[in-house]
Amino acid sequence: MSFAPLQNDTFLRACRRQATDYTPLWLMRQAGRYLPEYKATRTQAGSFMGLATNVDYATEVTLQPLERFPLDAAILFSDILTIPDAMGLGLSFEAGEGPRFAKVVRDEAAVAELAVPDMDKLSYVFNAVTSIRRALNGRVPLIGFSGSPWTLACYMVEGQGSSDYRLVKSLMYARPDLMHRILSVNADSVAAYLNAQIDAGAQAVMIFDSWGGVLADGCFQEFSLAYTHRVLAQLKRTGVDGTDVPRIVFTKGGGIWLPEMKDLDCEVLGLDWTAHLGKARAIVGGDVGGPGKALQGNIDPNVLFAPPEQVAAQARAVLDSFGAPHTDRSTTGPTHIFNLGHGISQFTPPEHVAALVETVHSHSRALRQR
Amino acid sequence: MSFAPLQNDTFLRACRRQATDYTPLWLMRQAGRYLPEYKATRTQAGSFMGLATNVDYATEVTLQPLERFPLDAAILFSDILTIPDAMGLGLSFEAGEGPRFAKVVRDEAAVAELAVPDMDKLSYVFNAVTSIRRALNGRVPLIGFSGSPWTLACYMVEGQGSSDYRLVKSLMYARPDLMHRILSVNADSVAAYLNAQIDAGAQAVMIFDSWGGVLADGCFQEFSLAYTHRVLAQLKRTGVDGTDVPRIVFTKGGGIWLPEMKDLDCEVLGLDWTAHLGKARAIVGGDVGGPGKALQGNIDPNVLFAPPEQVAAQARAVLDSFGAPHTDRSTTGPTHIFNLGHGISQFTPPEHVAALVETVHSHSRALRQR
Repeated sequence: MSFAPLQNDTFLRACRRQATDYTPLWLMRQAGRYLPEYKATRTQAGSFMGLATNVDYATEVTLQPLERFPLDAAILFSDILTIPDAMGLGLSFEAGEGPRFAKVVRDEAAVAELAVPDMDKLSYVFNAVTSIRRALNGRVPLIGFSGSPWTLACYMVEGQGSSDYRLVKSLMYARPDLMHRILSVNADSVAAYLNAQIDAGAQAVMIFDSWGGVLADGCFQEFSLAYTHRVLAQLKRTGVDGTDVPRIVFTKGGGIWLPEMKDLDCEVLGLDWTAHLGKARAIVGGDVGGPGKALQGNIDPNVLFAPPEQVAAQARAVLDSFGAPHTDRSTTGPTHIFNLGHGISQFTPPEHVAALVETVHSHSRALRQR
Repeated sequence: MSFAPLQNDTFLRACRRQATDYTPLWLMRQAGRYLPEYKATRTQAGSFMGLATNVDYATEVTLQPLERFPLDAAILFSDILTIPDAMGLGLSFEAGEGPRFAKVVRDEAAVAELAVPDMDKLSYVFNAVTSIRRALNGRVPLIGFSGSPWTLACYMVEGQGSSDYRLVKSLMYARPDLMHRILSVNADSVAAYLNAQIDAGAQAVMIFDSWGGVLADGCFQEFSLAYTHRVLAQLKRTGVDGTDVPRIVFTKGGGIWLPEMKDLDCEVLGLDWTAHLGKARAIVGGDVGGPGKALQGNIDPNVLFAPPEQVAAQARAVLDSFGAPHTDRSTTGPTHIFNLGHGISQFTPPEHVAALVETVHSHSRALRQR
């Protein structure tokens, strides 16, 4: 498999802690309902899963935000729940509601049935990765992704989203053995899934630990972080282009555990808006020439509801909070990938996104001239 | 006003960082729907506000958990939204839903109308405090409370609970001047409200910053913490008994900001389950004889869905995470008040609560013998 040479490597350089001319950015859930063109395609597709399972539609919506904004990376359009669906749990999306599984995993019998799914059942995802790479034609790199083992487990036990995680936590506290078994299967599934995305052309991969932050201290380390380690240990390090594939880990609400997350075998840590990037940089390794991790994040998506001038001011504040960017091209050092602290809201005005992107690029260039 | 002498001062001693024979505990929302006797009283009262506004009912339900469990403090039965209701926003509780306001505060005109409410409108709260003190008859101390200025603002702008805080954050980012005006009025209202509770007999007061944790770093300091400071600066330091009134501040999701919260002018900081008590103790001042704050928390309320043996094991783990308790009665030092990291769930089996209370008392006594 071969693809067109990459024209904009700013994002990948920042992942590797290499100096860049400006701070690259992309937005979590950048292909989505805030774009009228996305809604039009989704209407054609008939449903969310109709969109995600059709290679042409998935390619089309992945590229839509890039047509509007000079973003520095594309991310595969898919859902974090494809793996449990391939395990046979029966994913569906009811209109106006979130995802829902027909089967749930709440007892010993259901746990015993779980196994790493046949990756052939997920070929629609890998085909989409290859199709998107072709369509990108080297414009920007493509990020593949998966939910984390714990986050998948939350949905598999609850059967849907939850406000208190009562069922999954009840199982975890009452039967930690069963929870460990679910998480082991999930971790091996996530690793196989991400490796297949890498083989299909993904140039970086991201693990979304969207619900790690709901765990108690101690439980986070045992039931989420340990299984993120298990995924990372199994990931391929080289993509189809023969280059390294940076790995990003994002735990929503995980800022308090950054001192422990910094030991993960990955290149980039994502942060939500509760973290201060400068303080985080000091924790994960902030020295030029020294070891460390790149940081990704972390503006509050709700900033995008304010008028463009306020959006720009808040974007500058986030860039400034990271501190002076590293500019020495002869070595590695602290780098920042600008992003939201969580997925963009469907109610976001697209013109506010334009203001954000413009400000991040221009202000981060200016910061490097100081 | 005079009340019976206090028989169990364990909680108040721990608030003051004085050594105690065991770790005192109480539970957030300890009077509530998980107790069948509470449900019976609520049915009699007809509605939640019928319960909260009737002195006899409020007294009855406040004492119910103390009849079942040897808790070390009582907390006023009320709601955090009584202040905006007294401001004229029209609080109601729909069956099966959360609180809802008839009027919302989203524009300049609505903000201009806001004022510190006449405390006479809240006399049902202060009368309940006095009635509960009488009924307690010195058994354990009574804690008064209020929502934080930011938490009240969330409800005043959103009009109800929210999953994304889009409206209140939109206002905050777009019109910070209006948000500061709301928060100033709220802070002065909360101070007046807590002072009136102190005058009515409250022996400690707690500020619930339930939604502080949804704010971005920087915004938390500007829009939540600053106004908690403003409340604390106005609080009475001596109660009707002539003794000091400890002040507790709890920001759900605030663990990441503990280094800044430690400078609050209060005696106790509450923590949710994402924090490690031992690490928190090191941050807020952990030395015998040195300055510092007591810590309150922080077991995950979902632990209470596991069988009693697991509840006991998790309770011991939380006590152990705090580290060796201070036992020198001649000086102050690090102290722990055991609590949940958030309110108890309505689905909690009461017999599991009994296991928790028994374990906290027995294990914390054993820890002091080592």
